Amino acid sequence: MSQVDLDTPALLLDIAVLDRNIARMAAFARQAGVSLRPHSKTHKCPHIAARQIAAGAIGVTCQKLGEAEVMAAAGIGGLLIANQIVGPTKIARLVDLARCSGIIVAVDDPHNVASLSEATSAAGVTLGVLVEVDIGMQRCGVQPGEPALALARQVLGSPGLRFDGLMGYEGHAVMITDPDERRLKATAALRQLVDTADLLRQAGVPVGIVSSSGTGTFDVGGQFSGVTEIQAGSYATMDGRYQSVGVPFEPAIAVLATVISTPRPGVTIVDAGVKSISTDFGLPTGVSRLSEEHGWLVEGAEPQLRPGDKVKLLPMHGCTTINLHDRFYVVRDGQLQDVWPISARGRAQ
Amino acid sequence: MSQVDLDTPALLLDIAVLDRNIARMAAFARQAGVSLRPHSKTHKCPHIAARQIAAGAIGVTCQKLGEAEVMAAAGIGGLLIANQIVGPTKIARLVDLARCSGIIVAVDDPHNVASLSEATSAAGVTLGVLVEVDIGMQRCGVQPGEPALALARQVLGSPGLRFDGLMGYEGHAVMITDPDERRLKATAALRQLVDTADLLRQAGVPVGIVSSSGTGTFDVGGQFSGVTEIQAGSYATMDGRYQSVGVPFEPAIAVLATVISTPRPGVTIVDAGVKSISTDFGLPTGVSRLSEEHGWLVEGAEPQLRPGDKVKLLPMHGCTTINLHDRFYVVRDGQLQDVWPISARGRAQ
Repeated sequence: MSQVDLDTPALLLDIAVLDRNIARMAAFARQAGVSLRPHSKTHKCPHIAARQIAAGAIGVTCQKLGEAEVMAAAGIGGLLIANQIVGPTKIARLVDLARCSGIIVAVDDPHNVASLSEATSAAGVTLGVLVEVDIGMQRCGVQPGEPALALARQVLGSPGLRFDGLMGYEGHAVMITDPDERRLKATAALRQLVDTADLLRQAGVPVGIVSSSGTGTFDVGGQFSGVTEIQAGSYATMDGRYQSVGVPFEPAIAVLATVISTPRPGVTIVDAGVKSISTDFGLPTGVSRLSEEHGWLVEGAEPQLRPGDKVKLLPMHGCTTINLHDRFYVVRDGQLQDVWPISARGRAQ
Repeated sequence: MSQVDLDTPALLLDIAVLDRNIARMAAFARQAGVSLRPHSKTHKCPHIAARQIAAGAIGVTCQKLGEAEVMAAAGIGGLLIANQIVGPTKIARLVDLARCSGIIVAVDDPHNVASLSEATSAAGVTLGVLVEVDIGMQRCGVQPGEPALALARQVLGSPGLRFDGLMGYEGHAVMITDPDERRLKATAALRQLVDTADLLRQAGVPVGIVSSSGTGTFDVGGQFSGVTEIQAGSYATMDGRYQSVGVPFEPAIAVLATVISTPRPGVTIVDAGVKSISTDFGLPTGVSRLSEEHGWLVEGAEPQLRPGDKVKLLPMHGCTTINLHDRFYVVRDGQLQDVWPISARGRAQ
């Protein structure tokens, strides 16, 4: 079946491009001597996670506990939840997950560390822990230096917890278009992370993992002495925003849409709106406006289109667009090859 | 179970508020002598559709064929797909749906009318059809007046199709904050729709249905002589944007989130981001920024919050926020009463 015969809107995934992206990042990591634990929040799909691991990744990073549960249920190991898991309901679920599969979680708060220790030690399980350090994004994370050391020491002394190391995400740098400025900002951020790791070691705290970096800064982080693993996720499927940043990966996804109305000269309306293509990073190229289930193509760009014709639109943000869809329509050379469920879609809890 | 004990992010639906909104709109429609076919694209939930019908609605409007399939499967009748259904795959599905349940669809293109007629007459089914008129939104729809008459005549002469009337949506007016300007813009739009209906009748074309209006203009459309039914949908659950417009309905939804990090004085991070709360109409009140799975509360607004505390956030756009969630957590007086699946979530095809 040709992709143009698919019902729309359909989230296409070009498997040849996906595999090239996966192979390129794996080759980089091998060459740089850094581990790769790609972020699965982008694709939310165990099929893709399995391909990343087959190419050499040590596991996948997750943003939410629900994503980790989906990955674990699909047999994906090496899970890092790069986020704080807070509150009795979630901690009980985390303990359940830790019973069956080695799992690492981020912390940035002493009360949270105490709650995790209480729950894991009561259950007789061991949970890996990374102390999250705020290296400039100003989101979660303790401050670099002494505050990180203090929290690491608390983890070290907490039954049920295993201190594995540090993580920090230079999210304020990954999308800077100018490559020199991006590298400069990322370097300054990563320096704080690695210096903090050194401080811990000097204080006798063993630091195994130093985890960081997204698709925009994978090369900076991956080659930064002291960073042991990188979390980049968008590289596999890519999107319009990261393409504009100029990273060496190709867009593997697109939303296939059907022209449903050409009511007046110059007006071409397709059946994909913000419920199929996210706009948090802007409109897809060639689209001038989106309502919930309609898109206006840019006037004059496609003058010959008639109702029934199909168009492919590249979303600016893969992570949030993929989260709107239940499945990838996997294509090779324009032919449908498979359908992969986006099993962790909507698993925000 | 209290709502504050729910796992988060959770989409709360206050059933008392929902029922008040439903009752208020139903009372208005009764008093105005207009039919109400509320748009189900907002809630995507047959439970809510059933409550609207129990209160007097004649059915529900849908934006997508997939939504109509979900509603029909749940026993919801009186379905209007207020959109163009284009292409052989979708038309085959539409014919299947029309076999089992009376259904009306919008058209704005002669080739589409021909395709619909061919498919329905071959299958021996009859499909209700409204000609969509562009009354100023500049999306789909034929122009008012003669172009609408020409398409209506084609429908009248098409086997398998039943011409039911006209629809037009004054979507360019519904969100205007100034009530006088909103009424003025809506009135000008609806005048074109009703004048077109009169033109058709003068030409001997019977016009049963004249359908229009959203939550921002329900009162204008509902009291407009010649409009027979209104499509407003957001009124039932409401959102921050329509609240700011000043319509007489109350927000019934909120996203419950948990504080997961208070890393520095003044910084409060919750576990809900753009994957749980849409931002196409702006940020929720009290939130300064959202990333995918994190929200920054406005500094100083909630100085006492600690990790584990819960907050309720009102989304600016209900339709796109609800479409991110799989279920409503239905609460009354703050207690969990039920869980309703958002069965048509993601049914964009």
